[in-house]
Amino acid sequence: MTWLWYPADFEIWLGNRFNNRRTERGAMFPPFWKQDSHWATVEFSREYELAKPETIRIYVEGRYNFMFDGKLQFGEPAEWLVPAGRHKINIKVHNPATPPALFIEGETIKSDASWRVTHEDKIWIDENGVAHGSGIYLEPGFWNFNTPSDRPSLFRLAREEWKAVSTRVLSGSSSDQPSNGIATTLLIDFGKETMGYIVLNGVKGHGIVELYYGESEAEALDKDYCETLDKLMVETCPRFVVPESKAFRFVQVVLPEGMTVESVSMEYEYLPQDLTRSGSFECSDDELNRIWQVGAYTMDLTTREFMMDGIKRDRWTWSGDAIQSYLMNYYLRFDSDTVKRTIRQLRGKDPVSSHINTILDYTFYWFKSVYDYYQYTGDRDFVCEMYPRMLTLMDYCLGRLSEGWAIGQPDDWVFIDWVDFPMHKRGIVCFEQFLFCKSLETMQLCKDLVGPLSDLQMSNLHLSYPDVDYGAKAAELRSKIDKTFWNPASHAYLHALEPDLNPQVNKFASMFAILYGYADEQRQREILQHVMQNPEVPAITTPYMCFYELAALCQLGQHDDVLSEIKAYWGGMLREGATTFWEKYNPEMKGDEHLTMYGRPYGKSLCHAWGASPVYLLGRYYLGIEPTSPGYTTWQAKPHLSDLDWMRGAVPTPFGPIRIEVSKHKVTLTTPLGIGPGTLFIDGKTITIPPAQTTIIDY
Amino acid sequence: MTWLWYPADFEIWLGNRFNNRRTERGAMFPPFWKQDSHWATVEFSREYELAKPETIRIYVEGRYNFMFDGKLQFGEPAEWLVPAGRHKINIKVHNPATPPALFIEGETIKSDASWRVTHEDKIWIDENGVAHGSGIYLEPGFWNFNTPSDRPSLFRLAREEWKAVSTRVLSGSSSDQPSNGIATTLLIDFGKETMGYIVLNGVKGHGIVELYYGESEAEALDKDYCETLDKLMVETCPRFVVPESKAFRFVQVVLPEGMTVESVSMEYEYLPQDLTRSGSFECSDDELNRIWQVGAYTMDLTTREFMMDGIKRDRWTWSGDAIQSYLMNYYLRFDSDTVKRTIRQLRGKDPVSSHINTILDYTFYWFKSVYDYYQYTGDRDFVCEMYPRMLTLMDYCLGRLSEGWAIGQPDDWVFIDWVDFPMHKRGIVCFEQFLFCKSLETMQLCKDLVGPLSDLQMSNLHLSYPDVDYGAKAAELRSKIDKTFWNPASHAYLHALEPDLNPQVNKFASMFAILYGYADEQRQREILQHVMQNPEVPAITTPYMCFYELAALCQLGQHDDVLSEIKAYWGGMLREGATTFWEKYNPEMKGDEHLTMYGRPYGKSLCHAWGASPVYLLGRYYLGIEPTSPGYTTWQAKPHLSDLDWMRGAVPTPFGPIRIEVSKHKVTLTTPLGIGPGTLFIDGKTITIPPAQTTIIDY
Repeated sequence: MTWLWYPADFEIWLGNRFNNRRTERGAMFPPFWKQDSHWATVEFSREYELAKPETIRIYVEGRYNFMFDGKLQFGEPAEWLVPAGRHKINIKVHNPATPPALFIEGETIKSDASWRVTHEDKIWIDENGVAHGSGIYLEPGFWNFNTPSDRPSLFRLAREEWKAVSTRVLSGSSSDQPSNGIATTLLIDFGKETMGYIVLNGVKGHGIVELYYGESEAEALDKDYCETLDKLMVETCPRFVVPESKAFRFVQVVLPEGMTVESVSMEYEYLPQDLTRSGSFECSDDELNRIWQVGAYTMDLTTREFMMDGIKRDRWTWSGDAIQSYLMNYYLRFDSDTVKRTIRQLRGKDPVSSHINTILDYTFYWFKSVYDYYQYTGDRDFVCEMYPRMLTLMDYCLGRLSEGWAIGQPDDWVFIDWVDFPMHKRGIVCFEQFLFCKSLETMQLCKDLVGPLSDLQMSNLHLSYPDVDYGAKAAELRSKIDKTFWNPASHAYLHALEPDLNPQVNKFASMFAILYGYADEQRQREILQHVMQNPEVPAITTPYMCFYELAALCQLGQHDDVLSEIKAYWGGMLREGATTFWEKYNPEMKGDEHLTMYGRPYGKSLCHAWGASPVYLLGRYYLGIEPTSPGYTTWQAKPHLSDLDWMRGAVPTPFGPIRIEVSKHKVTLTTPLGIGPGTLFIDGKTITIPPAQTTIIDY
Repeated sequence: MTWLWYPADFEIWLGNRFNNRRTERGAMFPPFWKQDSHWATVEFSREYELAKPETIRIYVEGRYNFMFDGKLQFGEPAEWLVPAGRHKINIKVHNPATPPALFIEGETIKSDASWRVTHEDKIWIDENGVAHGSGIYLEPGFWNFNTPSDRPSLFRLAREEWKAVSTRVLSGSSSDQPSNGIATTLLIDFGKETMGYIVLNGVKGHGIVELYYGESEAEALDKDYCETLDKLMVETCPRFVVPESKAFRFVQVVLPEGMTVESVSMEYEYLPQDLTRSGSFECSDDELNRIWQVGAYTMDLTTREFMMDGIKRDRWTWSGDAIQSYLMNYYLRFDSDTVKRTIRQLRGKDPVSSHINTILDYTFYWFKSVYDYYQYTGDRDFVCEMYPRMLTLMDYCLGRLSEGWAIGQPDDWVFIDWVDFPMHKRGIVCFEQFLFCKSLETMQLCKDLVGPLSDLQMSNLHLSYPDVDYGAKAAELRSKIDKTFWNPASHAYLHALEPDLNPQVNKFASMFAILYGYADEQRQREILQHVMQNPEVPAITTPYMCFYELAALCQLGQHDDVLSEIKAYWGGMLREGATTFWEKYNPEMKGDEHLTMYGRPYGKSLCHAWGASPVYLLGRYYLGIEPTSPGYTTWQAKPHLSDLDWMRGAVPTPFGPIRIEVSKHKVTLTTPLGIGPGTLFIDGKTITIPPAQTTIIDY
C-alpha cells in the first residue's frame, strides 16, 4: 500500500518549490526555463475480483469522486464495502495545489503499482449510445509514502539540531544584559560547510535580526557582498527558526538594539540515506582517504529533494551537473530514487519548448542519464516511464537540426564548459555531435528495451518524426563526424566546422570520443599523446570537465597520473581548508581569491556536486567495479592499485554492496546474494567471481 | 493601470474551478478532458524613459523579485523610486496557487497592455560572457481588475438576495416550535428557473440539512432521482449560505429533528452586464416577445465566468454549445470579454492531446468562433493572441487526417448531433469535411490578418506542418467534397463515404453547405426542396441543430416558415410552463415526460444556452442586422417583417447599439457614432445608412 499519483507529477510539484527557493542577496531567483505544473485532475482505477466482501478505507489529497462499478456515489466516501465478485473502482481527484494523490487501504484492495492513472479519460459516446474511455492509462507514480498519514504533500527533508563550534562577539555585549544602545553582532562558526536553518535560542527583545551567511568567514563578515542574507522580524521567544534554509559554515548575526539571545544553533537539513547499501573507500594514503570523505560529504549535502548543483547557489537542478551526481551516487549511496526524481524533474512536461535547462548539451546528457541509470540499476520500468518523454524531447532535437547536425539555434545555450581561451560555440561544433550521436544510440537502446508503444500513445505524442531508425541515424552521424572532424595531421577531432574547418584543437571532442567509444585504439593513442598530454592544448580548468578528462585518462590506462592529479587538485583544496569541494579550483590563486567567481567576491560555490568526482573515479577506476550488463547481472572488477600499498571499499549494487580489498598480491571480493557473475581482471588474468561469497585471489 | 498576467492563464485557472464544480447527486464530476494549469513562474518587463523621478507602488499576487536596470533588489519591495532617465524593470512572480499577477501604480509607470510577459526567459551566456534572453515575450493578459485591491484571484460573480415566491410545509411544523420528533420538510419555489446559493435564515438547532434541488417541482420532490442535492451540517446561526451554487426553481429542504428556520431564500449569482450596450427585440406578437425575453434570461443565466451549456448540468464549457452562445451574445449583451474568456478556456494550453472537449466537430467550431468574434468586434488583438494556439491545434488536426479527410480517430468523439435514426459517425463523414474546410479557410483569414510570426515563435511551436497554404488546402478539399459527396440524383450531399458511398440523406451536411456558402444558388434551391423541406428526410430533434437549420432556412428566404416554427417550438415550451429554454423539446411528449433525458427522469436541462437561439435568429434574420466587414466598419440591415405588423429592437455593435424600427411601410434606423456606413435592403431597394443619426425610410 502506498500513495499514488500521476507519474512525475510529484517531482514536477516538488521541483517548483525546489527551483523557486534560490535567493541572491535576499531576492528570489527562479530559473530561466519554464516551470511546469502537475495535472490538477487525475483519475485512478483498478478492477478487483474478490472472494469475499471487504471494507476499504479511502484517503485522498484533493477533492474527489468515487465511482463504483460505473456509478458515481454521493459525496466523498471515506469507507466503502466492496461485495464479493468482480468490481471496478474509479476515483477522480482534483487538486490544483498539490498533486492529486490516492491511498486505499483494504484487505486485498490496496493502492499500489497495479493501479492505473490518467489525466484525461476522454469518455465519449458513440452513435449507439455506448460510452468509450479512450484515455491513456499509465502506471501510477509512487515513492515511499506508505501510510495514510504519510501524505506526499507533507514531504520534507529530515532535520537535526547542530550546535555551533564557536561563537564570537564582534560588537555589543556577550552577556544577556543588553548593551546600552548598541546592536550586538555575533560571528558563528559551525566548523564545516553545512546547510539548514539558523536557530536563535532564548530570544529576548524584538526587532529586525540580520543574518549574513558565509561559506567562508570573509563572506559572512562582508555585509555588502555576501551572496545570501536574511532580515527577519523576531519577537521574544524560546526558539526562533529562520523560515528558509541556507548554505553556510559561518553566519554573522546582527541583533537589534536591546535584543539578546542565549545561543545560535542550526537545524541541519538532509535527505536520510541507507548507509547499509552505501559505497566506501579507504586506502594506504591518508590524503586520498580525506579526499574521498570530503567528496562523500559534498555529495550528501547536494543530494536532497533532487540532485542539486551547489548548496549556496544555484540550488537548481542542472542536467550537466546532475549526470555527474548520478554517476558519483552509483558509487556512494546508490540512491536510485533521487536519481529518478531528478531525471523526471529535469524533463518536466510536454510540450518541449527549450532544451533541458535551455542548454543543447544538457539535453543530450539527459538522454544518456536514463540509460546510465538502467545500466547501474537494471530498472526497466523507469525506462518505460521515461520513454514517451524521451521521444518528444528527441523529436524537438530532430526539428532543430541543420543538415543533420545538432546546432545551437538562436534561442539555445551551447555550454560545453567555461573556458579561458577563445572558443566559439555557434555553428556545427564537434563536441555536440558526439553527444547527439550518443543520444541517438541511447534512443535506440531504450526503444529496443521498451518495445513498441500503442498506436493511441504514439498518436498522442504527435511526433514530427515518428518513424526514426535511431540506430541507423546514429551510425550515419558517426561516420559523418569521422569524415568531417578527424584530422590525421593534428591527431585530433577538430573543434568546429566553421569558419571553414576550424583548426582549433581542444580536449572536449577528443576526450568524449574516448569516453563514448567513438575512437579506435589507434586514435586513442594518438589523442592521448597529441591532445590529452599535449601542454599546448588548452588545459581544462573546471572540475566539471575534469571529471570527464580524468575518466578518459583512466580509460586510457593513465591511472598513476590521474591519482597524482587527484591528490594535487583535491588535496590542494583540502590544504586551503576546504570542508566540501568547490565549483572551481585554480591552484595559482591565493587566499580570498579562491572565493571569487562570476566577477563577484564570493560568487564561487564552495560545495558543488561536480567537485566530488573522486568518489566516482576511485570507485569506478581504482576499485574498478562496474556493471557490464544492466543492474549488475554481469559485472567486472578491474582494480588498479597504482602506487598505493592497499585499498579497500564497497561498491553498491541493486543487491547490496560488492566489497573489495586489494593489496599488492591479493584481491578479496565479497559479493551479495542475487548479483550476477562477475569477472575480475588482475595481473593479466581473468577470474570469474560468484555471487554471495568471499573470493580470495593471490596474484 | 490594470492587473496583468500571462495571456489565458487567468482563464485556465478560472476554468479549473468552473469545470470542476459540477456535481451529480452529490458527487464531484470533472470533465473528461485534460485540465491545464497556469504557468507558476512568469516574468513581466517594460522599459521607461522618465523626464523626472517618480515612486512606483508594486502589488503582486505571488512571491516575486524586482530587477531594476538588470540588478536584482533585496526582498520584495512594495515601493521603488525610479530616477529620471531610461530604466528597465523586470519582475518575476512565482505563484502555483493562482496566476502570477502584477499591478504597478506610478505617475507614468503603470501596468498596462504595453508591458511584456514571458513564462520562460531563457537567459543564457555566450562564449564572451554576454547574457542573452531568448524567451518569447507576449502582450500580457488583463481584464477589468483596475485597482490594487481588485485582485484577479478574488474574482467572483455578483450576488443578490432573492426571496422565495412560496414556501410549503410538506411535513413537520411550520411554526418556529420544533415539531416533536419529526423532521420538518419544506418545498420552496422561487417562481422561475434560477441559479445561486440557498440561504437558511434564522436557523435554530443543529444537524444535517438535506436539500433536493429541482428545475421542476417533480424533481425537487424526488429525493431518489433529482440530479443535484446537498447534505450539510448546519448549526444555530442567523444565516446559513450553502457553499456551492446550484440551478433550481424549486428546492425541498429537509430539516433535522428539532431544527427550525425562519425562512429560506437564495443568493442569486450572476455576471453583471452593461445593459446600455445590449440588444433588444419587441414586436406586434406578444408570444414572440415572451420568447425573446425568456431566451434573453436563458442566456443571462448561462453567461457566467464562461459561456456554460446548462446551469443544472454540465456546467462545463462545450465548444459546440459555446459558438451558439457567442452568436446569441452578439445580438444580446455583446459581452466580448466572456466570449474571449470562453475561447481561451476551451483551447487551454499546448500540447494538444485531444480535440476540444474531445470532439472532432467541436475543434472545428472553435476555429470558426475566433473569426466570428473578429467579424462582430473587429478586435484584431485577440486574433493575434489566439493565432499561435490556432496553429498548434490545426497542426494536431492535420496529423490525424486520413488521405486528406478529417476523420474520427479511435480516441475521438464524432458528435454531429443526437439523432433518433441510424447514422454512423465513423469514417469519412461529409458534415465533418465542411467543418474542416471552414476551419482551413478560417486559418487562412487569420494568417492574413496576423501576418508572419517571428522565426523564434514559429520554431517554438514545433509544428509538424509549418508551411501549409491553408487557403489552397481548403480550395482543394472543397472541390474534393463536391466531387465525392454531391449527389445530383438525391439533390443532396450524401452522409458518408463508406460503406461504399453511403446513400443516406440527412440535413446536416447539406444545411452546413448553405450556411458556410459551399452550395451555389442552384444547389441551394435543390437542397431546400429535396432535403430541408422533404418530410422523408429525418427531422432534427435538438435545439442545437435547430439553430443551424432555422438559420439555413432564413438564408434561403424562408422567414415565414421559420417564424411559425419559432412560435410553435419555443412557444410550445412556454405553454408547458418553461421559464427558461430547454436542452431538448419534443412537442409529442406529455407532462413529466418532458423532464426525462439520457435515460434519467430529470436528466434534461431546463435552462440550456442552445435553447435560446430565437435571440440570435430574430436579431440576425428579422431585424436583419449583421456586420459585412469586421467590427461593423460596414454592415447591413435586411429586415424581414414576415407576418408581423411591426417590430423594433436594438442590435449591439462595438460602437453601441443600432436601433431599428420596422413597420409595413417604414423603417427607422438610429446608428451610433463611430460605426461604419450601413446598407439597408428593403423592398428591393438599397439605401446607404450613415452613422450617428436617425434615418427614416418609407417604402
